Parts: sequence; structure tokens; C-alpha cells
Amino acid sequence: MYWEKVNSVGDLKKLKISELEAYAAEIREKIISTVKLNGGHLSSNLGSIELTIGLHYVFDSPEDKIIFDVGHQAYTHKIITGRRDLFGTIRTNGGLSGFPRMSESEHDAFTVGHSSTSLSVAVGLARARDLKGEKHHVVALIGDGALTGGLSFEAINDIGENNERVIIVLNDNTMSISGNVGALSKYLARLRLSKRYSRIKKDIKKGVSALPFFGDKIVRALDRTKESVKSAMLVNKMFENYGIKYLGPFDGHNIGEIVDILRQVKNEARPVLLHFITSKGKGLTEAETDPTRYHGIGGARPRRGVDFSRTVSECLPELAERDKRVVAVTAAMAEGTGLTAFAARFPERYHDVGIAEEHAVTMCAGLAAGGFKPYFAVYSTFLQRAFDEILHDVCINSLPVTFLIDRAGACGADGVTHQGVFDLGYLGMLPGMTVCAPKDGYELKEMLEWSLSVGTPLAIRYPRSYETEYRTPFVPYSWETLKRADNRNYVLAAGNRMLDEAMRCDVNVINVRTVKPLDLKTLDSVAASGARIITMEDNMLCGGFGREVLAYVNSAHKDCEVINLGYPDRFVESADVDCSLKEAGLTAENLRKLFK
Amino acid sequence: MYWEKVNSVGDLKKLKISELEAYAAEIREKIISTVKLNGGHLSSNLGSIELTIGLHYVFDSPEDKIIFDVGHQAYTHKIITGRRDLFGTIRTNGGLSGFPRMSESEHDAFTVGHSSTSLSVAVGLARARDLKGEKHHVVALIGDGALTGGLSFEAINDIGENNERVIIVLNDNTMSISGNVGALSKYLARLRLSKRYSRIKKDIKKGVSALPFFGDKIVRALDRTKESVKSAMLVNKMFENYGIKYLGPFDGHNIGEIVDILRQVKNEARPVLLHFITSKGKGLTEAETDPTRYHGIGGARPRRGVDFSRTVSECLPELAERDKRVVAVTAAMAEGTGLTAFAARFPERYHDVGIAEEHAVTMCAGLAAGGFKPYFAVYSTFLQRAFDEILHDVCINSLPVTFLIDRAGACGADGVTHQGVFDLGYLGMLPGMTVCAPKDGYELKEMLEWSLSVGTPLAIRYPRSYETEYRTPFVPYSWETLKRADNRNYVLAAGNRMLDEAMRCDVNVINVRTVKPLDLKTLDSVAASGARIITMEDNMLCGGFGREVLAYVNSAHKDCEVINLGYPDRFVESADVDCSLKEAGLTAENLRKLFK
Repeated sequence: MYWEKVNSVGDLKKLKISELEAYAAEIREKIISTVKLNGGHLSSNLGSIELTIGLHYVFDSPEDKIIFDVGHQAYTHKIITGRRDLFGTIRTNGGLSGFPRMSESEHDAFTVGHSSTSLSVAVGLARARDLKGEKHHVVALIGDGALTGGLSFEAINDIGENNERVIIVLNDNTMSISGNVGALSKYLARLRLSKRYSRIKKDIKKGVSALPFFGDKIVRALDRTKESVKSAMLVNKMFENYGIKYLGPFDGHNIGEIVDILRQVKNEARPVLLHFITSKGKGLTEAETDPTRYHGIGGARPRRGVDFSRTVSECLPELAERDKRVVAVTAAMAEGTGLTAFAARFPERYHDVGIAEEHAVTMCAGLAAGGFKPYFAVYSTFLQRAFDEILHDVCINSLPVTFLIDRAGACGADGVTHQGVFDLGYLGMLPGMTVCAPKDGYELKEMLEWSLSVGTPLAIRYPRSYETEYRTPFVPYSWETLKRADNRNYVLAAGNRMLDEAMRCDVNVINVRTVKPLDLKTLDSVAASGARIITMEDNMLCGGFGREVLAYVNSAHKDCEVINLGYPDRFVESADVDCSLKEAGLTAENLRKLFK
Repeated sequence: MYWEKVNSVGDLKKLKISELEAYAAEIREKIISTVKLNGGHLSSNLGSIELTIGLHYVFDSPEDKIIFDVGHQAYTHKIITGRRDLFGTIRTNGGLSGFPRMSESEHDAFTVGHSSTSLSVAVGLARARDLKGEKHHVVALIGDGALTGGLSFEAINDIGENNERVIIVLNDNTMSISGNVGALSKYLARLRLSKRYSRIKKDIKKGVSALPFFGDKIVRALDRTKESVKSAMLVNKMFENYGIKYLGPFDGHNIGEIVDILRQVKNEARPVLLHFITSKGKGLTEAETDPTRYHGIGGARPRRGVDFSRTVSECLPELAERDKRVVAVTAAMAEGTGLTAFAARFPERYHDVGIAEEHAVTMCAGLAAGGFKPYFAVYSTFLQRAFDEILHDVCINSLPVTFLIDRAGACGADGVTHQGVFDLGYLGMLPGMTVCAPKDGYELKEMLEWSLSVGTPLAIRYPRSYETEYRTPFVPYSWETLKRADNRNYVLAAGNRMLDEAMRCDVNVINVRTVKPLDLKTLDSVAASGARIITMEDNMLCGGFGREVLAYVNSAHKDCEVINLGYPDRFVESADVDCSLKEAGLTAENLRKLFK
């Protein structure tokens, strides 16, 4: 078992090239069994095993810096770099992070979780290296999906300008999460079909006799017409236009190939991009067949509750049926946000723009300015990237764009980079933005119905799922008393998680389903009654909803007592939602203590 | 005088093509005289007069949608579309905005102020058009600088995918604001030198006999070697790779040419990019010679105070002299932020990444991870675009990136899109971020000195200039009592503008130079003394510094009275800083009233 033998980069380098394939097979098995238990990113990790082994075989981490884009493909990296024995703890609270973390290992050259950062980080690290006169390598491993993010383009533009010695390893699995979109993707497809690789091969593999072993698809491409070859000859100049040497495409599952090529490019004096074709979910038939479904899987522990995305999936097409203005937009997250059904039913009113949250928002602003009613379904943490577009393009113009914000609040296993705990802050500060938080799927449904009549920016934020069904009607802009108690203790709770905790206490519970603007009528009547108020939000305290309640009460009801509960001023690290809530005191137990 | 004759798009269309040049000359004169009086974007407006006339001559606004990127080149557009007689009020409070505003005219198809939004907006508008079955044109006028923003790339990728009928007019003046950078810029330069235009010309100008009149530079390019021609032949495939038909380059100051070409492309069934070469500052010798200096000019009214950027300009090179880790970064704003001297003295430690704030931040994170001490000098309003990069790349890793945030607070004439009134909110909510606001240039200097020793994320925010010199020393993480009064009234004022107002009152004045974290020692002692506290900030109330003061006092000093002053929950519209402050009650007069 190579698995037992290798627990460091040094151990790996002792293996012969001929042994690497067997080692990869062992890693593949281990990843499959662990992810089936713990949940995690399966397809992308299976697709990058050979590339990662090759990188660590050829380069010398931690001196050489290997940057993982998105970071959902770093399991093999963790296994090789001393974390083999902890691998079973991945994505559990206190265990290994599912993503690279600088604080976890010196081999994790940069912390990551969001897409398209690797090239910018690599440029920065390369400049630091050059200024210090050091000689190590900086390598960015980036998928074809992440390449469509604007940040990647800004970095590529800058790499070309400064000619930094950076090695870009393009892991082209022909899809990001929901299947790739956009012109760049088509361009890469043409490259894949190109014969040109054979000429480049000759340059690279001088003295190496064996012909390369390429994937079936590429071999078949050799038979294509001259036309496509000619076209590819022209188009693969694109990276060269940016001053980046392009080499490829190569088979990203052939370790011998990978090692040869990586060894060659170590001597390049300028930026180089290596184009590898990989198969997402490689080695697990069901994942290869349906990599989207196996992109991230949930693990063996059953999840609780009903997904809010199910409501989106059921209701949004209905709205679209009734109202021709409804358009749905996603940034490569159709499945996670519940848009698959919509996409099938209204393909002409559905847009997956790829990993491009900023464009998604500004394009929605354009649709709205053109008289339509766009719904951008997105995870809370990823919407952060479009803060300025929401402010500058949507809110200043008061355009009726609706944000359906999934995975709001603590998000669990994906950890610190993915927590959706800033949205009430960054959306709440925007003039004219209405922010809602449904208590259950029924309320979300009614909010969606109502949203058709809203002519201004609207954000509806919710965690992945809800457990309690309240089934009481939604009334716009108003709060709702969900529970009355025979005391003066009031909990103003935003969202289903907070409500579930509050309902377990002997207190008056107000459903703050409209987080912004505040329902001042209800707040006045509560505050005037001599209440003791506790606000609860699955969000940072700083900039959050509780602060606005406090400010209003402070100005209008000086004697009313207000306590804010939410996440304190540090990053939410936990990989377990219940732990996050407990640490922040967002629990029934803590409420009872505070009201004592 | 054509100026008198034309006050609408219809009037313009009555002119003969041969009259347009004379009309352009009149507009040019009027823009020069008005901007010299009111201040404004001179170079970019002078460079786009002919293109704008051409667009309105050929297209039918408001049915056809003309989107201006950045919007600092829309003066001619405003003059043509019914706002001629108000043109003298531009950039004054209550007058015309210096940028397109949807609320100002039906001809302003989209509100703008930040860069790189036009293509996304155009895609959205084109999709809305196609869904409705309408036939009008959607035209985006974008500069070569704005094209480097990642948002533009995300849009281009999406245009290619969906093949929307969008006309992109590239106004290539070979520089954004500080001179263009990046690989894209070099690529465009090669295109400019290409002979290929002549062949394309033939396709376009069938039946038009006269040869085009191109700028000198292009004519000279005809004499270049075959090598460059061949290279250009290859590289101008770049836009084609994205599914966008490329035509050009053309002379962007030859109205006859412009009209011909625009008329031809009206019939294109797919996205097309027209590449026009223009001269920034065209027609004003000093502006053509030094377009950077004349990019935005101040107008006839003398500005008050001393620019904070002067301090940056003087001190940052000194720091770099002493500490080899210091690197300065700008996103196309070297002059405005005070980095020109640094760039000249330490070219190898200076990076202008172009209009690419996100890349700037993440690249800085890479530099910091590599052991350097990057300073990103940026305007408050533009840093909004990098919110997620600050959070995800800098703060989660607690990297020592310093943000030098100029134009914070109300910004005056640039108006609603440029107000720097959100930074205390979006930075304040980030764990581990320190936020400072200097009272004068001396304090900024000492903050800069101190920043060398700070090993975590640091933001220093200040408006353009300060008027009062206090010259008392800076002590990190502490507040400072600048004035003592014989009463229990305390003003906690963040930044020089707020201090200047507070100092005019008979109150105790505390200089909140460290906005985050709060100086709890000082706050405790003030609050415990039975004080009445007013917080003042040149920022939105919601999410601002005052809310955190209130929250702390509410939890630790229940009986202490706190009032928050700042901008209420609507966009700051005024084009005059004093008016903005007055409207928000951020004045000595209001303080006196509140403390009565």
C-alpha cells in the first residue's frame, strides 16, 4: 500500500514514476469512501488526483507555491502533504478544512473557497519572489469554470503586462459546476479538438520516444477536418495575445505525461499555461456520468429539514408561467439554488452566466431597465462579490431585481470561506433595498408571489433548509407574532433558524420576516409596552439587523431594553451549523439565560 | 451657430453630414469653457464628441439604447438630447449630473459612474428587447481602459455565448486615466498598427469611393514590416474567439467615417465591436499633451484645504526607502491617489493594474503572503468593487495589506455614484480589519509610519483634503480629546470634516482616529462620566461607526445617552459636499441644536 508509505512530499518523491498510478488509485478509493461518509466535493477531487500528484512530484512545496483555485480539489494535496492520517476528519468540526487554509499547513500557500482568485494570488506571490531575488516556482491550478470569472481575466491581463514567471495549470474538465457556459468555454472546446498539441509535444518531449497517450476524445479529434484544425491554430493564439505561452492540450490523467510536461516547463522564463483535459468524477462511474450531481455530496449523516431551494424550484416556474417578465439567472449554481426545473421549462428566460456574479447582477439590472423582472438565485457568500454592482447598478436606479439568497447564515461543513453571515450587513446598508427572511417554505412561496408586485430591489435570504412548518400567511413589510407569552420578554428573530430557537422558550416571539425596513409599527408597540427585547440574527452583529433595532429603540423608546444576538466580530470558523449557533449564543438555552 | 439650432436628437438629424464637423467644433468650445468653470472630465469628453454625434445621428434614442461606460464622456450626449440650455449647470448642486442618470432623461439609458458596467447592461437590455420581440439597437460606448475590468470580460464571455445583437463601440484613446496597462492594452496597440482595416473597409464601405482619413499614427503604421501585419492578422481574432465580429480600427474623429460605419453595422445580426481610435483631450492642446492632468479638472472655484494625497505622495516613498517590503498598487488612479512620485522612484515596487480593483486587492494579498507590505491606494467608492476580495483573500488570512482610501465621505461634484459613504460599513463589518481616519496630514503621516509595524489588514480613509492642521501626535488604537468643555456634552467625531464641525461648538471633542476597533478605555471613561454623546461620521448611519458605539454603550453604560449622526438611509445625491453635510445634520449648527 502506497497510502501507508506516503505521508509527505518527500515520501512521494521516493516513488518511481511507474508507481504513481497505483498510488493514485489508492487515493481515489480513499477519497470516494471518505466523501461518501463526510460529504464534500467529490467530482472535482476525483478529477485532479493525477495532476496533484504530478505537481508535488515535480515541484518542491512549500518552497514552490502551489495555489488551488476555488480549493474544492485539494484533497489529494492534503493527503500528500502530511495530513493523510487526519483525512477522515475532513469537513468535520475541528477536523481538516475541505479547502486549503494557510493556517492549516505551510503547504497551503493560500486560503481559498471562492472562485477565480488563484491567478491574482500567483501574480502577487511571483512578484514577492522576484523582489526578494528568490527562484522558486509559483503554480496555479485552475479549472476552466473559474477561468470565466472576471477576476481571472484581470489577473491574466496583468500577468501579460509584467511577464511574471507563473505556471498556470488549466484543469479543463469541460464544466464548472453546472456545465460550462460562455464563449471561453467554446474556445477551450475548439482547443481540445486541435491537432496542434502534437507539434507542441515535439518541442517539449525532445528525446522522449514514446508517443503520448491521450484520452479517447482527443484521439478521435485527430480525424477531424482540416477546417477545425485551422480554426484551432488561430484561436489558440488567445493566451499568447496576453503574453502567456500556451501548451496543450494534454491528458490530465496520465501521470507519466504530466510529470514530463511539468519538468519541462520548470525552465520557462515567462508565464506559461498548460492545458490539461480531465474527467470530472474520474474513476467513479456514477460521478463521471453525472458530475453535477456529484460535485458536492452530503455525506452519510442525514440532513435535516426541507430545502428552501425546493420552493424556488416549484414556485419560480409558476410565476414565470403567469408573468412574462420573469427571468431567472444563475452564476453556475442552477442545481444548488433550485433553477433546474426553470431552465428546462423556460430556456429562453433562463441565463447561466458562468462563475460571474458581478455580470449576473449588472446584466439583471439591464434586464430590469428593459422592463423585465429578473431573479438572481445565488449563495449568500458568493453574492459578496457583486456588492458594488448591487449598489451602483441596481440600488441607485432602484431597479426591480430580486435576489434569492440561499445558504444564508452559518453554512456548516464548507467552513469559514462560505459562511453567509455578512449579507444582512452589506445589503442592509443599501438605500432602497428590501430584505426578507422567510420562516418556512410556505412563507418563501408567498414572498415570491408578492415579489412580482415589488418594483424595487428585493433580497430574500434563507439558509439551506427549514425544519419547522409554521404555515401562517406572509404579510409584506410587517412582522408577525408567532408566539405570545405571559411576560414582557420579546425575541425579534430573523429567519427560520432563529425562530426555531426562540419558539422553544417561554417568551413572546416575533417573526422578523422583513428585516429591512423595520416594521416600526410593531416595534413601537412592543417597545412601548415596557418590553425587554432580544434580537436574533444568523448574521454578524456588526452591521446587522439588531443594530438598527437598537438605534431606533434608542431614539424613540429610551427606556426599552435591547440585547443583540448574532455573530461577534471574528470569522465564523465552525464546520457545523449547530456549533456556530451555540458559540454565538443563538440558542434557546442562551435566551433562557439572558431572560432570567 | 449650430449650437442654437440643435436641442434634440431630431434637430441633429436635420443637419447635413457636412455640417456635423462644424457642430462638433462648437460643442468642443462649449465643453472647454464650461468645464474650465465647473470642473469635470475634460479629456474624455473632448475625445468622444464626434463619436457621440455620430451615434445620435445614426441611431434613434431613446428607442435605441446608448449606454455610456463610466459615463465621464456623456457631455455631448447631454447637449444633444435636450439639455443644452442646462449645460452650464453641470456638476453643480441641483444642476445636471456629470454622468448619465436614468432619472435625468429618457435618453440616459442607464445610470453610471463606475467603470466596466456597459457591456453587462447592454446584454441585459438586448435580452429584454429580444424577449419582447422588439427590434431597436443596443449600443455600448466603452473606452479601452474600462475594457480591462473583469466585469467587461464576464460580459464579453456571455455575449459570445448567446450571440445577442449588441453593438460595442470601443473608444480607444490608448489610455484609461493614468495611461493604459496590461496585455489587453498591448493587444489593442497591435490592432491599431494593423493593415487589416483596409480589407475590412472594403467590406463595409461598398460603394463609398473616398479613402478613409485615418490618424497620423495609423497612416504611419502602413509602412511597418510584414511581420507586424501578420501578427495583427492573428491577434485581431481575439474578439472573434468570443463570438464578436471585430471591425476596425477607424478614425474616431472623422464624423463622415463614423456615420458610414455605424450605418453599415445597423444590419449586423450578431454582436459586433467597432474599434475607433480617438485622441483624449482632442482640440485642446494642453489636454492632448497631458490628458492625465486634464482627465478631471477642478473648475474655477478654488478648492479649500490641502490634499491628503500630498501626504501619501511625500511619505510613501520615504517608507519604501526605509523598508524594502513596501509596495504600492493602484487601479489606474496613480495621480488622484498620490502615487506618481512613488512610481518614478520605485518602479519595480509599483504596480498599476489598470481598472481592476478586485485583482489589485487579491494581488496585494499574494504580495503580503509572500512577505511584502502592499499599500493599495484607491478611492472609497471604487474599493466597493473589491468587497469580497478584502473579506475572502485579505481578512480571512489576516494579511498585512494597507488600504489608503481617498475620497472617503461625501465627494461633491461627481455625485451619487461616487460618494464614499459606505466604507466604514463594509470595512467595519470585517473581522480583523483596523479602520483609521486621520484628522490632518500630519496624523496621516504618523499613521503611515505606524502602518509599517501593523501585521494585519489596515484601512486608512480620508476625504480629498483637510483644512485644519491640528498637529497633535497619533497614538495607535486610541482616541484623542481635542477639546475640553465645561459641560457633559461629548462629540465622538471620525475624520477631519467631522472634527472641524465639532470644534466650532462648546463641547468636548474626541478625535475618533481609530474607527475600528473602538477605544473602549476612552469610551468607558466618557460614558461613565454621565456624558451625552453624539457620534459623527461622514458615512451612512446604517452599518456605521456610531451604531457600534451605541451597541457598546447600550451594553455597558445603560444610562448614557447616545445620538448617531451620519447619512440617513437614502443615497447621497448632492454635488456639493457642504450641502451633503448640511442635509445630514453633520454641522456645528445642528450639534448646537441637539445639545441644547
